[in-house]
This record gives sequence, structure tokens and C-alpha cells, in this order.
Amino acid sequence: FNIAVLGGDGIGPEVTAEGVKAMQAVGRAFGHNFTLEYGDVGGISIDRHGTPLTDGVRELATSADAVLFGAVGGPKWDDPSAPTRPEDGLLALRAHLNVFANIRPVKVYPELTDSSVLKPHVLEGVDMVVVRELTGGLYYAQPKGRTQTPQGIVGVDTMRYSESEIERVLRVGFELARGRRGKLTSVDKANVLETSRLWRATATRLADEYPDVELEHALVDACAMQIVLRPASYDVIVAENTFGDILTDEAAILAASMGLLPSEAGARTPGFYEPIHGTAPDIAGQGIANPCGSILSAAMMLRYSLGLTEEAAAVDRAVQTVLEQGYRTADIATAGDAATGTTQMGDLV
Amino acid sequence: FNIAVLGGDGIGPEVTAEGVKAMQAVGRAFGHNFTLEYGDVGGISIDRHGTPLTDGVRELATSADAVLFGAVGGPKWDDPSAPTRPEDGLLALRAHLNVFANIRPVKVYPELTDSSVLKPHVLEGVDMVVVRELTGGLYYAQPKGRTQTPQGIVGVDTMRYSESEIERVLRVGFELARGRRGKLTSVDKANVLETSRLWRATATRLADEYPDVELEHALVDACAMQIVLRPASYDVIVAENTFGDILTDEAAILAASMGLLPSEAGARTPGFYEPIHGTAPDIAGQGIANPCGSILSAAMMLRYSLGLTEEAAAVDRAVQTVLEQGYRTADIATAGDAATGTTQMGDLV
Ligand SMILES: CC(C)[C@H](C(=O)O)[C@@H](O)C(=O)O
Ligand SMILES: CC(C)[C@H](C(=O)O)[C@@H](O)C(=O)O
Repeated sequence: FNIAVLGGDGIGPEVTAEGVKAMQAVGRAFGHNFTLEYGDVGGISIDRHGTPLTDGVRELATSADAVLFGAVGGPKWDDPSAPTRPEDGLLALRAHLNVFANIRPVKVYPELTDSSVLKPHVLEGVDMVVVRELTGGLYYAQPKGRTQTPQGIVGVDTMRYSESEIERVLRVGFELARGRRGKLTSVDKANVLETSRLWRATATRLADEYPDVELEHALVDACAMQIVLRPASYDVIVAENTFGDILTDEAAILAASMGLLPSEAGARTPGFYEPIHGTAPDIAGQGIANPCGSILSAAMMLRYSLGLTEEAAAVDRAVQTVLEQGYRTADIATAGDAATGTTQMGDLV
Repeated sequence: FNIAVLGGDGIGPEVTAEGVKAMQAVGRAFGHNFTLEYGDVGGISIDRHGTPLTDGVRELATSADAVLFGAVGGPKWDDPSAPTRPEDGLLALRAHLNVFANIRPVKVYPELTDSSVLKPHVLEGVDMVVVRELTGGLYYAQPKGRTQTPQGIVGVDTMRYSESEIERVLRVGFELARGRRGKLTSVDKANVLETSRLWRATATRLADEYPDVELEHALVDACAMQIVLRPASYDVIVAENTFGDILTDEAAILAASMGLLPSEAGARTPGFYEPIHGTAPDIAGQGIANPCGSILSAAMMLRYSLGLTEEAAAVDRAVQTVLEQGYRTADIATAGDAATGTTQMGDLV
């Protein structure tokens, strides 16, 4: 198997190294051979090559079986007048690989109840998956820019969706729901946005094809409240790119830490796997980041892109066991716990 | 004082009646005379007059000292192909009155700890105000619409901000922060959106004029997580229209119920006051909605538009006392509590 490893910036490379370590352990234990090809992406690529995504790295990713991505960005490259940014590399890569449906499961580990801000009863029965549209919407559409006008600078971004873009990501949600508890929540802001009206109408139309799935429409503002108040009531959520970005970071509240959450787009070739967290510049280089998001993303890669189900389950179980044994990285440690470092956590898993 | 009372749809009229009741009690106790002028807005206005906002109601609002608004919308008017919607009336009114800064304080009542999904320690010291930009951004800008193309229907919304629109709402935040704990969190998605880069640059520029205020930039996704994980770390938050919509509904988690949260735009004439909740069609007409959001909005009107500080404090205290005495509407009742109805709650306050 050929795996492109793109660690990126900040804690990206640190955590990705642990995802790789988990793969290598699987290779040894089960007798598989993973060919790892490393590439620069994001800020480090700007620094070294003048662009956040080189043609070479794009090719590397395209020809791989799967991509293990870290995170990109950081204050170093935050100058508002910079011609390009680390994030542009990630956005270009997602678009190039056509990763339109990013699947972000939210798993609650009962062991982490103490680290949670939520009362335990709220977390009972939580088992949801958020499907985030990842190659359209407010992130990509033109016009997008800042213009000097006689009245001062004006900034513009555009949210645009075609019916087919909406349909394909909703279908991913319907199919997922079918194999789970059979409930799909389609998120929009249809009382104000035209893209959302198209989104809602498309969801309603598709629902006829999935009579076994119960479709519910939710306004994004209401959903942002309910996802924490009544998280167990959700099964599969499908949302526009920006809405999905906000809701999945928020849903990390349920999991106690964003550091634990993986994501996948394994129905594509190459499959695209990234933890949902960012580069966490405040803790980068300190060896204290939680590597589980990357390790669990690697597990998803084993399962969805490489067909190694048993191996994936072994990695998931290993994470579970290490948490059961009481090991905690700083993000999930409670007062009194001695925190486990990034590489040690990876070694333990 | 001339007050325009626009109850709207769903629970809007029910809760607004209790806001009015509180004003009338203030009138009797302190010897003021409030002239109330009622108007239709939203769905009821579509049904009666064919438009969600008539010229007459717009005039009524414009010439009032302040507007007490309820909520608009509901499934009855949700047809995606309808030429106009209840929400259009609210959006038109906000724009017409130039209510660009909607101030939404998030108050935590210690009495409601039992009703909260959050552990008590998280709520300690929470005292934040969200300033939501209300007349620009993704809600309003053109182009906005759905078009039939050879490739199917395409939907478009536009997020546009001029520097001056951003500046005036940020200034509201800076001024507020100055009179509070001196911290301003400016929310954006500057790693992806051009409007956000303009937003961030504008906030940074203005910070020089407010050396007594500490400015922090937060990405909207990260903020959606932190606002629940570390709510006490926020003082004043300023956000774009859509982001502010999402974050304030989410922040209702902190207050135990959205039904308790008021909002104001009292620096304008007329002042504009509305609870942050919606029409709650599922409970409309049952007499069980929480009227406190409207009552506290009325208190804000007394304070900010009518200059009746003592009177406003009396209403705030009355709500506080009724909660201390253990009265609970259904939204904040815990198992075992007998829930208090809308009008009874209003009578008690
Ligand atoms: C780094 C950034 C562009 C990215 C996004 O907004 O998509 C991140 O927040 C994420 O959620 O993966
Ligand atoms: C009814 C709707 C248009 C409105 C909004 O999105 O502004 C509501 O959600 C609010 O927060 O006041």
C-alpha cells in the first residue's frame, strides 16, 4: 500500500508521526507492507517551496492509495496581505482529490466523563456522524476577494451550490444512516439562505428514495444548540462546508477533546484522512499534543481505503484500552493526573 | 412613550404579551404611561395582508420610541417556492431600522444549575455579551437566489462587508468591553474567508484606539467549541451576522434555556428588542413557552431606550426572584417540578 504522509504545520507532524507508528505496528503484527511517502504541505511548503502545495506533492497524493494529513496554518503565515496561505494548500488538495464528503464520527469514551464539561447523563447513547461538505460552499465559490472602492475596502465571499453537489453529499449521509440508526438530520438555514432552500428541497426530494431513513431538517442555529443539549438524538448529520466546520469543532465538546477526533473520506481514491483538530500553535513542538485523532484517522484508513477491517479494529481497541488504563494526554487530563506525552501515548497504543 | 408591539408568529404573541404585562406593571408602580401600538409582522402579516411587513407597520415601528418584537416563521410558510416568507419581514425591518448591532447578553442563573447540561464549575464566572452584526453579511448581500442552469439548479448567497460596516459594529463591541472586563473577542474565519480577513484587519486597526481593551481574534469553529468549554474566559464577543446567529443560539446552552435570553439594539432610535428564541411551532398556542426572554427584552427597553434604569432593574430582579422561588416554565423544569405556564410566569414576575 502506498500512503502519502502530509504532516503540515504546528502539531501536525508530531501527531501524524504517531498515526504512522500505529500503521507500522499493524504492518509488523499482521504482515503488511506500507510504503510511506512524505511531502510538505501548508506553511512549511510556503517556506521551502514558495507555495502551500507543490505539483509534486499533489501528484504524490493523487497516486497514493490514501493520504494521511496532519494540519496546516499558524501565526507565522497569518499576515492578512499575504498572497497565499497554508490553508490554501489544504483547500486546493481537497478540491483536487474531490473529497466532497468528509465523515467525522463523534465517539464518546465513557472513561473520559471526568474530563467532560457535560453531565454524564447528556452523553448517554451519543453515537453520531457528521458528514461535512468539503469542496464547495462559502470556502470556494467566486467572487471571493477584497477590493478597494471609493467607499473603502469591500470584502466578498460567495456561497454557491449546484443541486448535484448537494445531492452527492446528502446521498453519502442517507447511505450512512441506512447502515446505522436510520436517521438523517439535514442542516441548513433555509429561512434565510437561498443555497439552504436548494439544500432542503434536495434533501426532501432524495428522501423518497430512502424510505428506510427518517429525514429531519434542522436550522444551523438550532442545531448548534441541540447538538450539545440533546446529542443522543442525532444519528447522521449532513451540513454545508462552513456549517460543518463549526458544528464538528463544537461536537468535540461531546468527546471531551478535539484531539480525539478523526475524519475520513475513504469512499474516494485516494482516501483522505485527517484529524479534525488544527495546528494548535500554542502547544506545537512541546510533545504534549494528543495523537489519538491521527491514530484513529489511520485506523479509518486501514478500514475504508485498505480494506483491513481486523487491523483497524485492533487500532481502535488499542486506543480504547490505553484510555481505560488511565493514560491521558494534557487535553484530557483532569487535575491530579500526570499527563502522558505525544510519543509515549503513541507507543502505548 | 410610544412602543410598537410586534408579536409575530408561533409563541411570539404569547411571550410578547408577558413582556407587555411587565411594562404595564412598571407603568402602574412607577407612574409611567406607555402607549402600545400593535402591528402584524411575519406569517400572520402574509396571511392578512399578503406581505410579511406592510408599509403601515414599518411606519409604526419607525415612529415609535422602541419596538418590542416577538418571533416570526413557522412550517405553514415554509414552502421553498413561496415568493416571500415571514423571515423576510424581520430582515426588512432590521435593515430599515438600521439595527446593525444586536446585543445579546448571556446570563447564567445559579438557580438553574440543575436544569443545565453543564457541570456547575464550567458556569462559574460566566458573564458574556455577544454583539451580532445584524444588517449585513450572508443574510443580505446580492447576488442571492436560485437559477435554473443547463446543469441543474444553482443556489447562491453572498457574504459582503464594507470596512465601515465592520468598523461600526466592532466599535460597539470595543465600547461595551471598555465598560466591562476590558476584553474583546473578534470572531472570524480569516484563514479561509476574505470578508474575515477584512474583519480581522479592521479589528486590529481599531485596537490602537482602545488601548484599555484587550483584543483577541478567534476562528469561528474554535470559538464554537471554547464558548462552551471555557465560557468564563469571554467578556464581549463580536461576530458576523450568520456566525453570531449560530453562536448565540449555542450560548443558550450556558443559560440553560434559550427562552431566558433577551436582546437589544437600544443605541438606535427606535430601539429594537427581541428575545433570541424563535417561534417554537411545536409548543405554540399551548401556553407553556418561557416568557422571560421577552420580559427581559422589555427590561432592556426600559433601560436603554426609555432611560428608566430603576424600573429596568426592578424587572430584572423580579425575574431573578421568581426563579429563586422555584418557579419553572417547562423548558427549565427538571423532572419532578410542576411546570409554570406562560401567563402564570408573567403574572408572578
Ligand atoms: C484549517 C482550516 C482551513 C480547516 C477548515 O476550515 O476546513 C480546519 O478548520 C478543519 O476543520 O479542517
Ligand atoms: C428568524 C431568523 C431569521 C432569525 C435570524 O436568523 O436572524 C433568528 O434565528 C434570530 O436569531 O433572530
